Amino acid sequence: MRVFQIQDDWGMANLKLADRPQPQPGAGQVLLRMLASSLNFRDLVVPERGYGSFTGTLPLIPLSDGVGEVVAVGPGVTRVAVGDRVCPTFFQGWIAGEPDLPRMTGSLGGPIDGTMAEFMCLSEQGVVKVPAYLSDVEAATLPCAALTAWSALATHGTVKPGEQVLIQGSGGVALFALAFARIAGARVTVISSSDEKIERLKALGADATINYRTTPEWSKPARALTDGRGFDHIVELGGEKTLPQSLRCIRPGGTLSMIGVLSGSSLATPLGLIITRQVRLQGITVGHRDGFEAMLRALEQHRVPVIVDRVFEFPALKEALAYLKSGAQFGKICIRH
Amino acid sequence: MRVFQIQDDWGMANLKLADRPQPQPGAGQVLLRMLASSLNFRDLVVPERGYGSFTGTLPLIPLSDGVGEVVAVGPGVTRVAVGDRVCPTFFQGWIAGEPDLPRMTGSLGGPIDGTMAEFMCLSEQGVVKVPAYLSDVEAATLPCAALTAWSALATHGTVKPGEQVLIQGSGGVALFALAFARIAGARVTVISSSDEKIERLKALGADATINYRTTPEWSKPARALTDGRGFDHIVELGGEKTLPQSLRCIRPGGTLSMIGVLSGSSLATPLGLIITRQVRLQGITVGHRDGFEAMLRALEQHRVPVIVDRVFEFPALKEALAYLKSGAQFGKICIRH
Amino acid sequence: MRVFQIQDDWGMANLKLADRPQPQPGAGQVLLRMLASSLNFRDLVVPERGYGSFTGTLPLIPLSDGVGEVVAVGPGVTRVAVGDRVCPTFFQGWIAGEPDLPRMTGSLGGPIDGTMAEFMCLSEQGVVKVPAYLSDVEAATLPCAALTAWSALATHGTVKPGEQVLIQGSGGVALFALAFARIAGARVTVISSSDEKIERLKALGADATINYRTTPEWSKPARALTDGRGFDHIVELGGEKTLPQSLRCIRPGGTLSMIGVLSGSSLATPLGLIITRQVRLQGITVGHRDGFEAMLRALEQHRVPVIVDRVFEFPALKEALAYLKSGAQFGKICIRH
Amino acid sequence: MRVFQIQDDWGMANLKLADRPQPQPGAGQVLLRMLASSLNFRDLVVPERGYGSFTGTLPLIPLSDGVGEVVAVGPGVTRVAVGDRVCPTFFQGWIAGEPDLPRMTGSLGGPIDGTMAEFMCLSEQGVVKVPAYLSDVEAATLPCAALTAWSALATHGTVKPGEQVLIQGSGGVALFALAFARIAGARVTVISSSDEKIERLKALGADATINYRTTPEWSKPARALTDGRGFDHIVELGGEKTLPQSLRCIRPGGTLSMIGVLSGSSLATPLGLIITRQVRLQGITVGHRDGFEAMLRALEQHRVPVIVDRVFEFPALKEALAYLKSGAQFGKICIRH
Repeated sequence: MRVFQIQDDWGMANLKLADRPQPQPGAGQVLLRMLASSLNFRDLVVPERGYGSFTGTLPLIPLSDGVGEVVAVGPGVTRVAVGDRVCPTFFQGWIAGEPDLPRMTGSLGGPIDGTMAEFMCLSEQGVVKVPAYLSDVEAATLPCAALTAWSALATHGTVKPGEQVLIQGSGGVALFALAFARIAGARVTVISSSDEKIERLKALGADATINYRTTPEWSKPARALTDGRGFDHIVELGGEKTLPQSLRCIRPGGTLSMIGVLSGSSLATPLGLIITRQVRLQGITVGHRDGFEAMLRALEQHRVPVIVDRVFEFPALKEALAYLKSGAQFGKICIRH
Repeated sequence: MRVFQIQDDWGMANLKLADRPQPQPGAGQVLLRMLASSLNFRDLVVPERGYGSFTGTLPLIPLSDGVGEVVAVGPGVTRVAVGDRVCPTFFQGWIAGEPDLPRMTGSLGGPIDGTMAEFMCLSEQGVVKVPAYLSDVEAATLPCAALTAWSALATHGTVKPGEQVLIQGSGGVALFALAFARIAGARVTVISSSDEKIERLKALGADATINYRTTPEWSKPARALTDGRGFDHIVELGGEKTLPQSLRCIRPGGTLSMIGVLSGSSLATPLGLIITRQVRLQGITVGHRDGFEAMLRALEQHRVPVIVDRVFEFPALKEALAYLKSGAQFGKICIRH
Repeated sequence: MRVFQIQDDWGMANLKLADRPQPQPGAGQVLLRMLASSLNFRDLVVPERGYGSFTGTLPLIPLSDGVGEVVAVGPGVTRVAVGDRVCPTFFQGWIAGEPDLPRMTGSLGGPIDGTMAEFMCLSEQGVVKVPAYLSDVEAATLPCAALTAWSALATHGTVKPGEQVLIQGSGGVALFALAFARIAGARVTVISSSDEKIERLKALGADATINYRTTPEWSKPARALTDGRGFDHIVELGGEKTLPQSLRCIRPGGTLSMIGVLSGSSLATPLGLIITRQVRLQGITVGHRDGFEAMLRALEQHRVPVIVDRVFEFPALKEALAYLKSGAQFGKICIRH
Repeated sequence: MRVFQIQDDWGMANLKLADRPQPQPGAGQVLLRMLASSLNFRDLVVPERGYGSFTGTLPLIPLSDGVGEVVAVGPGVTRVAVGDRVCPTFFQGWIAGEPDLPRMTGSLGGPIDGTMAEFMCLSEQGVVKVPAYLSDVEAATLPCAALTAWSALATHGTVKPGEQVLIQGSGGVALFALAFARIAGARVTVISSSDEKIERLKALGADATINYRTTPEWSKPARALTDGRGFDHIVELGGEKTLPQSLRCIRPGGTLSMIGVLSGSSLATPLGLIITRQVRLQGITVGHRDGFEAMLRALEQHRVPVIVDRVFEFPALKEALAYLKSGAQFGKICIRH
């Protein structure tokens, strides 16, 4: 079968089309014919062995997100059937409960082979059925980007109607967070880098917006949008540059979901505000299968639209990754298999 | 000032128009000119001393729910100002946290004088400002009916998008629960006694409905509406007759908010289902001021409509109570002062 | 291999010694040589098909609790190794998270074959390693009795230092609950049927005791033991006869863990106290593997003693069950294999 | 009455003995004759106006912690009576629930006059009765130091039996945290700067200790103490220098209670570990009255010893503050009035 893999040595230059034997499902396993994949920021880091030993060994099939059709099942499979359209879960071994090392090491796209393959063979415990209203490329975006946003707002955050949520940017996680905060009844403020993106964010339902390029000290006008109370929840995607601003507009006792480090990965901020405002900083990395399935019920009920920026064909993976690196996208970048 | 009070002895017959001196606000107190009141089932029970010693001593001004305008404030008041339109809280001393005996004994309309008065004098801690979008009679319905529904779904239940909620009937609590479950993103099934009411419930956004008169064994079709999973949350208002049905269509690990006893107050049901389904039965009695203020932010953001069935004039309190007793209403019964 | 099984037809009379072929572990499976088993009330019900269709099909090997040594592992097993001493989990498929039907149907001792066998072959996901300080018969008591008590107090209840806990009786769950409440820092009151048992409960650390035979209206003296505040948590094992008393001495907002129905299985109690005291009734059925492993860490740290009343030899299963039925035991009844 | 106050201008040099008229309790107020006070790190910062505008206006009576006897009550007081020994709460207006700005601004010892006075007049809502087993100077240490530790471990952290807790140092909060973690059944590791202090920490029940002077990279041996799982909870008192080490030995999903900044107040650490380990950083500032009263019940039940390092007489406040600044103490520094 046709795959992309990082081979011989680490480095984006060693990411190549290759051929592998088609796997066969054993007891409790399912065979998926992959239909689509989707890119995450992580996919730029893994080829450079950016997460160190967690990244695994070569050759490695990249990409964490995708969707496939079940074309064969091994003995004893009961969760899914041939013909079902399913997403693999990012953490293959994290079904529910608290994270621990074993649960967090088995992630797709490094160290486990990822979705850029014609077929994948996985435990039936590592897949979830996806709603019919989503196209293949839309469904391919769910395992990391959507679930990360869901874990932040629903699993850890429990956003309620009438609460104030601030979201940073217009990447994949940000747009899912916007959608989830809205269906949970929150009032959503989004900060973005351009007026053009802001127009699109408003069209997607953002209640308020701030251009952080033209208003670098955005915490003050943001706080004003909450009648001075501060935000109940901030989806912190920027990291180094946004966190000090976020700490100035979070409410006492509020939650910052720590997800991204787009503006830098070093935390350099006075501790005082965290302590005196009794703020909670909650690290979020994707989430478990129970959360995924709860999210799918919410998606299906509300027919939440998935924002796909651009779709590339399978052989154009490198062009897709280059486009991701440019940061020009609004929503997700997908691959059609 | 003009008041209604139960005087001389308990009994509905002793509920009479009377005159009392106008109170003056002391330190930390506010004086309200009452604008409207609203009826609850409790208001039929208190005059008969139905809750025993909790009901207080005579003479007693009845009714728990109302809204007034602040017309004077005592020294040291900072939470509100003259001109503000506020609701008294049902439990005057329960600001936040767990319930305890002191917090639950100071309730309006028995043992503390209630809202059927021209003026009320209360601690500034015992009032909350209400949103401008609501009329006086609409605002008068919030302290008990709305807050009970909010406590069930938001404070204790934390309903999430994609969850399945079942609500019983079309009284005040039921209609607020319907509204709150919807803005929290849940899918809502309502059971009702008539097709006419069912039409109105659908118009208010019920996703599914069942006529429990024509389908007395409603738990089976109700469960089918959840693809067999069962309801995440049931707002249990019927009591004796509904609980056995509810236990058959709640999901394992689901929550039953125990609120009402409209069909009987005795719990006669096999314990087995509670245990083996690991169900939670959560008793709900109104709620605290923090919950009230969180609810007000949700109401204001979503401009949740309040369903008022009929408005009576102040002197017609007894007619209003008789109408409440008839059970014919859809939504709240109010009194204009 | 030698087993006990219910064969030909339901009924205790059809529980017989039999021979079965020794199982072999497949991929992801482990083979246990069983060392000991332990009895639960459930083991009296299952042979009579007391839980209906949940009980499974014949022949059925009974008993849910036991401990064994890993003597062989199939391909891909990483959680345990040959030589480890492990307990099977009651719900083989419930690793963590909320209960649901699939997680709750795969229980040992019906419908899945139980522990009264020389060997058991299970998924590696369905076993947990047990601490060295426990003997085999002591370790055999953990999967149901101990985990039920842990789920009530630690997973659902989160008992804190200084809280007041009331426990009913001196059966297996009750004695584990006493131990767990104590190491969590709570003050523990136990009610019991005899002064002799009460002496033993005091020796095990009960802070206060009440003989419910001589004081059938025990709720009043029990409440007095809490300075009138009421109990934060009651481990409700009696059911029909104890619940009305429990509702009179629980604090507002307190939790009743609904576990047992020893005094009758019908809930016949006024709903009013549940509602007005805002009590939580939480059904408890054993628990998940994450809870089991958290409990094992607590057991090991505190070297919690396990109270074994009597040990029978493998062939004496029926005598052991008869002794269980007599209700004379204080602690657990075990079987040495 | 005799007081210490910061007068004329900010600065430790302006902290002086002075005379003020004795206050009289109004409606809902209580008059305390102060018996003892206790020092916190904050008391070194406030005189220098270290918290800016939050510090209030001059003249200001310093110190947040103390205990007094009720010697008079105003009309309507029901929570306490003349003769009761009570602690003022640090946040006079925070009874329960989430923190917010109004609740967090009314703190004793700045902006509100503190405990270095012969008499204090406070709302009855702002005091709690203390257990008889504590001496006056011991009781004086509770409002800030003890409650901060309780809020971290019990209110926010919910430490359970068998969990692993790491505590930094041997100051007031650290020693209370050690005591609370132990009565909650956790296994406690403490890091300290000297072998002499370590001996005392062991005597107080520390299960394991590390000297961070001789082992500056203490996270590795600390993690080894948890069998490699990492700590469930770390009470982070050091700040700048300890946080990077803490992040290396916390378990995935664990909680860091952010309390102190003794080694520096700037947060300079890679964000990556917070995110990928899904860690929670929870800012803690003292806590609410409900937490205080829950803590008092735990203290009384377990007769938790309070570690007082040294007691100064009232006029020796400045010597006491200088001793606090030296950092030589083990436990609390107190003032006898």
